[in-house]
Amino acid sequence: MEQFERNIEKYAELAVKVGVNIQKGQVLNINADISSADFVREIAKKAYEAGAKSVDVDWHDDHLVRLKYEKADESVFNEFPAWKAQAREELVKNGGAVLSVISSGPDLLKGVDGKRIAAFQKVSGKAMKKFREAIQSDKISWSIVAVPSKDWAAKVFPDVPEEQQQEKLWEAIFKSVRVDQEEPVAAWEEHNASLHTKVDILNEKRFAKLHYKAPGTDLTIELPDKHIWVGAGSVNEDGNSFMANMPTEEVFTLPKKDGVNGQVTSTKPLSYAGNLIENFTLTFENGKIVDVNAEEGEETLKHLIETDEGAKYLGEVALVPHQSPISQSNIIFYNTLFDENASNHLAIGSSYSFCLEGGKTMSKEELSQNGANDSITHVDFMIGSAEMDIDGIKADGTSEPVFRKGNWAF
Amino acid sequence: MEQFERNIEKYAELAVKVGVNIQKGQVLNINADISSADFVREIAKKAYEAGAKSVDVDWHDDHLVRLKYEKADESVFNEFPAWKAQAREELVKNGGAVLSVISSGPDLLKGVDGKRIAAFQKVSGKAMKKFREAIQSDKISWSIVAVPSKDWAAKVFPDVPEEQQQEKLWEAIFKSVRVDQEEPVAAWEEHNASLHTKVDILNEKRFAKLHYKAPGTDLTIELPDKHIWVGAGSVNEDGNSFMANMPTEEVFTLPKKDGVNGQVTSTKPLSYAGNLIENFTLTFENGKIVDVNAEEGEETLKHLIETDEGAKYLGEVALVPHQSPISQSNIIFYNTLFDENASNHLAIGSSYSFCLEGGKTMSKEELSQNGANDSITHVDFMIGSAEMDIDGIKADGTSEPVFRKGNWAF
Ligand SMILES: [Zn+2]
Ligand SMILES: [Zn+2]
Ligand SMILES: [Zn+2]
Ligand SMILES: [Zn+2]
Repeated sequence: MEQFERNIEKYAELAVKVGVNIQKGQVLNINADISSADFVREIAKKAYEAGAKSVDVDWHDDHLVRLKYEKADESVFNEFPAWKAQAREELVKNGGAVLSVISSGPDLLKGVDGKRIAAFQKVSGKAMKKFREAIQSDKISWSIVAVPSKDWAAKVFPDVPEEQQQEKLWEAIFKSVRVDQEEPVAAWEEHNASLHTKVDILNEKRFAKLHYKAPGTDLTIELPDKHIWVGAGSVNEDGNSFMANMPTEEVFTLPKKDGVNGQVTSTKPLSYAGNLIENFTLTFENGKIVDVNAEEGEETLKHLIETDEGAKYLGEVALVPHQSPISQSNIIFYNTLFDENASNHLAIGSSYSFCLEGGKTMSKEELSQNGANDSITHVDFMIGSAEMDIDGIKADGTSEPVFRKGNWAF
Repeated sequence: MEQFERNIEKYAELAVKVGVNIQKGQVLNINADISSADFVREIAKKAYEAGAKSVDVDWHDDHLVRLKYEKADESVFNEFPAWKAQAREELVKNGGAVLSVISSGPDLLKGVDGKRIAAFQKVSGKAMKKFREAIQSDKISWSIVAVPSKDWAAKVFPDVPEEQQQEKLWEAIFKSVRVDQEEPVAAWEEHNASLHTKVDILNEKRFAKLHYKAPGTDLTIELPDKHIWVGAGSVNEDGNSFMANMPTEEVFTLPKKDGVNGQVTSTKPLSYAGNLIENFTLTFENGKIVDVNAEEGEETLKHLIETDEGAKYLGEVALVPHQSPISQSNIIFYNTLFDENASNHLAIGSSYSFCLEGGKTMSKEELSQNGANDSITHVDFMIGSAEMDIDGIKADGTSEPVFRKGNWAF
């Protein structure tokens, strides 16, 4: 077998066994662009081998997605069919697993009327609320894997000859998800354990706030009393483990909704809703974003934070050392799945309820009382660099280094 | 522009303008295999140009369809998600149009457990009842076009070098749908008119029965008093014309459910549910199929007629001269859309209510009282040949030739 085909097979196996960790009799639902068909078929084979009851694919075609944004009637972007949300909710009820195969280039919707995109983000976000809540509370297993489309690969490797771009991006992906290692599944177990060491230390420290310092960044983030740091493997309602993101190099928790103050500057491009947002700064007062500016994509960024009230607040604080393997590759992926795992990051929007002690069973009101933010959106953005220092400040005011020059201080 | 690309564009335009005849503000829903993406994108472009509100595609992948039949859990074939039927019913409610892009090879499900296929035909047929009734009463515009998949082309042209098979099948399709002509849309108008001449003659004759004679065939089919012959263009509930099948060379009506007697032998292979049924004979008593045998695919044929009670009766009587252009090509397409338009044929299963005077607004009971058959299935099968004679017999017992040696006698 060719090396490439062997890697595809290993990646598919990883997605099924570590990513969604398919159980006997479970339905697997895959979202994918039609250009990813070869890889999706391999995943389906592996899923059936692992005992999946059924594998269903929601296909889309990036060409037609863009054509619709360009040519369809305005009203289309204010509608979301009830049956589509229902299909997702049934999947949750039946304990299915969801695997997203991402492949779009970051410029997919560049030049499209931003109002259409923002309207559709809003209407789909509202319609998919129940499903998103199920995902964000780890009710069912979910995971994300990636296939380099032509456009995406061209964006990442503009200086590489066109016919080699996709191959280069495949290589970078294989490396970042440990498919280049002899036993990827075992390598992931080891990686999982090492992230959990950091998680345990942070959970013992009980920091009351984090203070970030870097060029363009001077930010204080309070953490809720009941915050829990988590990382790597998750566990669904049925007690089965899964890996929501592959790669994943982050440990993360939630910020106190109204406890964020100061300014933060992005360090990597943010690909959002088919557009790139670059070199942007956010200013916070009591948790709320009160000022925004961006060298590129400022309109898109403004649409994002106007999605709803919660989109003006943060929902995630994630720590990733600058010497993480993906960061060391020096590749900008123009894709959050990879770039967030090369960099300290924050997320605009909703928080994960499992980041609060007892959060999975809290009511909306309890979550809010405990400092959690709620929104129909959740978008990670990258702020880490080799120049970033972070201090952890305890309730008694004592302070200690958490990050120095972009890497763990402990 | 290359000749091929010009033909693809002309075919797409034909599908949009003559096939579903898209109106301003209408939603177009397309069903297609992911391998047909280039053609589907061209159709979408033409539909937006014609003013479509939105173009949505229900993609499937033949590879995964077959894999599911082979590997999924038995129970999957006895389930049909409610939301899928709901999506279709909403489309009808909103006056959308449906275009099927067929491409599968006739052996797609060859060797698959026939019980699984039969079970799923039954459960999907039941779930999609409302939608099918909307289609069969021409409530909304619907049409079928074709793209040669690799497998299908290989089946049709086994003796042509592999790399030329798809091209050969494209050519045959272009020819049969008049895309090879300078002005296909105008050519279709002319063709429509010429089929209507036959329709008018038959509707004046008011035959009480048809008597078929050919090798292996001696069959009498009674026609309901209120039968109407139709052909070519249809008209939907909103009064817009459309062309359900392209090609279409048939004029057809419905048989009287309990008025079919004798024996009929197939003259072309029948592709049904991913399997081929070949050289088969059906024996009728008072409309009911009482005996069946087939050289190939007998199990599949038996499953078909056991779908429900109505699947043991006929729902359509269609006349196509043996000198029709498709027949003259001497190509067996192994696909009913083409083969039925090269041959006199009948259909097992439901009848079209518009084939009865006032049928579109009749209740189920009235349709039945007037001789119409009802079923969750409708499958055309080919019986025509150069040796077929058909007599038309009037209520007073007088008889006159309708077909002689496979062609129109008037
Ligand atoms: Zn994150
Ligand atoms: Zn996140
Ligand atoms: Zn027919
Ligand atoms: Zn038919």
